[in-house]
Formats: sequence, structure tokens, C-alpha cells
Amino acid sequence: MNPDQHYMKLALDLAATASGKTNPNPVVGAILVKDGQVVGVGFHRKAGEPHAEVHAFRMAEGHTNGATLYVTLEPCSHYGKTPPCAELVASSGVTRVVVAMQDPNPMVAGRGIQLLRDKGIEVEVGVLEEEAKRLNERFVHNMTKRRPFIISKVAMTLDGKLAASSGHSKWVTGEEARQEVHRLRNEVDAILVGINTVLADNPRLTTRLPEKGKNPVRVILDSNLRLPEDAHITDCTAAKTWIATKEDADPEKVNRLKQKGLEILFVPSTRLGLDLRRLSEMLYEKGITDLLVEGGSEVNASFLRASLIDKWLIYIAPKVLGGRGSLTPYGGPDLETMDEALNVRIHSVRQIGEDLCITAYPKYG
Amino acid sequence: MNPDQHYMKLALDLAATASGKTNPNPVVGAILVKDGQVVGVGFHRKAGEPHAEVHAFRMAEGHTNGATLYVTLEPCSHYGKTPPCAELVASSGVTRVVVAMQDPNPMVAGRGIQLLRDKGIEVEVGVLEEEAKRLNERFVHNMTKRRPFIISKVAMTLDGKLAASSGHSKWVTGEEARQEVHRLRNEVDAILVGINTVLADNPRLTTRLPEKGKNPVRVILDSNLRLPEDAHITDCTAAKTWIATKEDADPEKVNRLKQKGLEILFVPSTRLGLDLRRLSEMLYEKGITDLLVEGGSEVNASFLRASLIDKWLIYIAPKVLGGRGSLTPYGGPDLETMDEALNVRIHSVRQIGEDLCITAYPKYG
Repeated sequence: MNPDQHYMKLALDLAATASGKTNPNPVVGAILVKDGQVVGVGFHRKAGEPHAEVHAFRMAEGHTNGATLYVTLEPCSHYGKTPPCAELVASSGVTRVVVAMQDPNPMVAGRGIQLLRDKGIEVEVGVLEEEAKRLNERFVHNMTKRRPFIISKVAMTLDGKLAASSGHSKWVTGEEARQEVHRLRNEVDAILVGINTVLADNPRLTTRLPEKGKNPVRVILDSNLRLPEDAHITDCTAAKTWIATKEDADPEKVNRLKQKGLEILFVPSTRLGLDLRRLSEMLYEKGITDLLVEGGSEVNASFLRASLIDKWLIYIAPKVLGGRGSLTPYGGPDLETMDEALNVRIHSVRQIGEDLCITAYPKYG
Repeated sequence: MNPDQHYMKLALDLAATASGKTNPNPVVGAILVKDGQVVGVGFHRKAGEPHAEVHAFRMAEGHTNGATLYVTLEPCSHYGKTPPCAELVASSGVTRVVVAMQDPNPMVAGRGIQLLRDKGIEVEVGVLEEEAKRLNERFVHNMTKRRPFIISKVAMTLDGKLAASSGHSKWVTGEEARQEVHRLRNEVDAILVGINTVLADNPRLTTRLPEKGKNPVRVILDSNLRLPEDAHITDCTAAKTWIATKEDADPEKVNRLKQKGLEILFVPSTRLGLDLRRLSEMLYEKGITDLLVEGGSEVNASFLRASLIDKWLIYIAPKVLGGRGSLTPYGGPDLETMDEALNVRIHSVRQIGEDLCITAYPKYG
């Protein structure tokens, strides 16, 4: 690692501390270095609060002349909730700026970098770019696709079973992996399950962590509005519940659910059920930037078939179940040949307690 | 690593070069060190040929006085195809012997070590013992269980599918993983598939490698003797074929198959089909020390349910198939709860091309 990469790595580590806390904004870290000495550090903590650069400049006050700024994302050039950082940088006395990646936000998209260069500042772009893009994968996806970043999470046995044929699945993975999933729920805007999961397990779908956690919106796929009106998730005091159902759902039941505080999303249908692509757009319009799909076999398959999965988290428990009728992570309509499988790229394999977690990304189109 | 571990590691590396070539014997490596200098090296190449120690002593002739011997397995104390190594060591002038593991062979089992100690030689046992036991897992298993070491090999998608509902599975994994399986076939005494695989794919089940490979015995589970008499595997010129069938199999067909050079193993039946435990004993009696089960969903499940699997090699391809009726690696009778799963220990995860390979061992009873 050369010095540029070293400081950028540090900036990325700072940024990462706010993962899941800055939605809909990206996570950003900034480091100011003068004469080989770090003089200021900062990161973006939360939407509405100062950007990373602002914190770093405040700390470095009086030491910024001739300094180098390392920032994980192109400084913004537009007036949002805060004034443009590029102008702050340009007037700071900094003579060199190292940027990990251009801002994919169409309102910035190189304009921040151009503004700095126009002021005679040396700008280098692309240091640890891949790491930066991965860290902000949710934000990059939002900006380029205008849809929530959809994570499909699965907990299965080594032989690819989600549950026994009876539906019994408590528990596939161990305590540490389950804790990690609660941490993940704490980072996303919404989680989604199907009505069958609600009917079978009557779950609360809240975040249970030793530290205080945030509860994501609970989205339930329920085409035929079968939701029992006394299900745990109809209690909206701890978390919001949104029911995705058909446009012709029973208006009386809809009203009763609304009175309990639930929101009803009326989703057009396709031949295969609710139009999940349209639903994902509706969720994005309502401010959901990322969605954790924790479905059973059929809900997972619907997202798979709709090519809507942006990331896989496959937890594998060290056990072999067997059973012809056991449930597998992705069911759905049958396929004729192995060639119809969706190709993915395995990004990493981690050990968590006695379980493994495989992270993969789609190779669409 | 201290010097003892360093030399033992080298001895284990030498031993490993003969993996799969020494059956029914273990693999063994030996290093002779005098005054901090390696003076002799050797390993056991093949059953009937000299033991590792013999090669090392031949090379070190004239330099063994006061030397230390590192050997991955306790020197033998009995007359087998060669004279006992412990006596050779005792008369060599070696003053210290470092042994990775005691010989699990009941005919040795500490007697070699005792013989050396009785002659006043310092013996240390247990250096890199775990690695040594892993390297000779097949031999240790044979000696302690008197059964073949049974490896269950599976190639599946990331979502645990072996084949589409049609049975189509060509190919799940990539070229490099398939090549590795051919190398594995080259190392085992026998491979086993079910009759359905023969009927569906008419495979040859021979080892296809750039280098010249050995062909393991092909064992076919065929309870009702449905084997087509013109199947590729009935050609026994390249490899032996053994058919495991019921005791009351059609004598005329049995005779015709025997005339073509096939062997017929008459196996007693249980409620669930052929008694696989008995079959594995029969195979061991016929000299099969390890068996690679490359079954489909049902054959794999039979071995799983019989608690006969000693090692799992799960190849995972970076693709997601889905499909309710897709075939999974272990089918068989349904289970009521997740608690009935067999617990395993994940030993390692390797990347092979774009695929992964998970190695696991059972946690039986």
C-alpha cells in the first residue's frame, strides 16, 4: 500500500462506521494530511448532518494550507441539506485532493471534481475505487437504478435445505449468525417476508440486539389479504408495517388494518402474482433505499425470477438434512435445464461461529 | 514453527506426494537430521515397496550415528511385506526419534515406539499429530473401523440444487472442479453410483486426466438388476465393474454379466433397500479401502441415513437455479424437524476456479 492508499483505507474505515445510518445518503470518510501528518478526520454520520469533509476541516482549522484531502466520494457540488463541499475545499487552501470514486448522483457526477480542478487544485480519482464502490453499493445502486438495493438472505443446511418438509426450521444457523442478521436488520430501511411466514411463525420481525437497534419497515407480501388481524406485526408501535396486496383487496379489511396503523400498498398483478418490480419502485418512492428479503422458498423464488436480487447472503449451517420434500431456499416454477440457472459471482466466504456466510452478486445480462 | 515441527512438516509433505498410491498402506514420510543438516529423506511410494525409513537410511548411510529421525507414523514393529522398521532404527545409531502419530494398526499400536524406548532411544510422539492423522484419514479409518473410508461428493448450485427437475445437470461446476474430481477418482479404490445414473447418463466412470490415471473399481447399486447389458460400464477392459444387487437377482442375467467380466455382489436387503453397511464391509473384504460416492439425490440419501459418510466434498457453483422440483444433493424420506439433521464439522473452504469446495466431516453420535 502506498501512502495514498493507506490514507484512503483509513477514510473508508471511518466511513464504514456509519454503514446503515446515513440512508438515503452514502457513507463518506475524509482525512486531511499535511506534511505527512494527519491533521483532520471526519465522516458523514447521518442524513441532514454535516458531510465528512466539514468535520475534517473543522478539526484541521489553521492547518489546511497546502494539505491533501483524502475523501472516499467526490465532494458534492450542489446545494442539498448542506452547502456544496467542493466550494469549501476550494477555499480551504488544500492543494491536492484524492478521491476514491466519482459521485454516481446525477446532480454531482463529476461536477465536484471539475470545480476543484477549475480552481487549480490537483485532483486524483480512483484510489481504492473498488472498495469504495462496494462500501456504497446501496447508494450506487439507488442512484443508477432508482430502485431499492435488494438483499436476499438465506439460512440453509450444507445440503441446501431451508426447512424440513413440515416447514420446521428453528434453528438452521447458530446464535452468532442469527445475531448478525439482527445487525443487518438494524442497517436496512425495510425487510420483506411473505404471508405464509406470518401465518406459520407469527413473527415480530423486529431487531433484537444487545445494543439499542432501529426497526426497519416490515413489508408483507399478501396478495389475498390473508393477514390475521391479531398477528404480532399488526402492532405498529415498535415498527411500521406495510402490506403489499392486490388492487382489488377487500376494502373493509383494508380499512380495519389502516385504523391499526398499517399501510396498504396496492400492487398491480402479473401472471405470476404481484408485480415485484413495480412494488420495488413503489418502495423506493416511499424512501426505502434497501430491502432485506427474508422470505421462504416461494417468496425468494419470486424475487429470483424477477431478476430483482442485487446481493445474496447465504448462511450455511454445518448440518446435512436430506429429505425429498424438504424446503429449499429458492423454489418456484420448475426449470428444464441447468443452463437456466442465474449466474452469480461469489464475492467472499466468511466463517461466523460454526456457520459460513457466502456473499454473492448477480451477473445480470 | 520450532525445528521439530519444521522437519515434521517436510516429512508430511513428502508423504503426501504418494496420496492415493499406497493403498492399503498409509502414506509415510521420513527425514534424518544430523547436526542441523538433513542427511536422508524418504517416503513410502507403494504397498510392497520399502517403507519411508528404509529410503531415508539408505540415503543417509554413514551419517546416522547420533542423528534424529522424523517420521510421520510410528515405525512398524511387525514383519509384513518388509522387515520391522523399528529394529532398523534401533540398530542405526539414531539417538532420537520424533513421531507424528502412533500407528493405529492393531499389530503395531505403540509396540514400535516401545521397542525404540527399550533400546534407550529418546522418542517424542505427537508432533503435528493432527495434520498426520488428517493425511492418513483413510488408513486410520480402515484400521479402527475395518470399513472403507466413504467420501460423499456433491456438485450443487449455490441454492443447493444438483439438477433441474428433468434431471438435467450438465454441468453444475466448472472445468477446474470437474478436473479435481477426476484426480480424486485417480486416488480412490472404488467409486459408486446408482443404477438411475447409469440409465440416465450411460457414463463410463473412468478417470480422465492429462496425465495417465488409474481407474477405480466402478460399483453400481442396482437392487433389481436393471443394468442394460450394453451400457458403457459393462465394458470391463478399462476398469472393473461390480454390481451390488439383491440376493435373489435373476441368475441368467447374473451369468451373462459375469461372462462379460462383471462381478456381482449379492447384498442382503433391509426395509430401506440394499444393506449399505453390509455392502461396505463386503467391499472392504475385497480390498476396497476408500470409496467415492457420486450418487444422485437418492443414493446419497441412503448413505446419509445409514450414517456411512466419513467425509463430504461439497462443490458449490456460482449459480442460483431455483425450482420446486429441482433435485437436491440428499433426498430420501422426509424429516419432521430441523433437529433431525446430521451435524457435521466444516473443515475447510477452498476456491477452485469460480467454484467453492467445502470439506466437512461427520459428528457421529
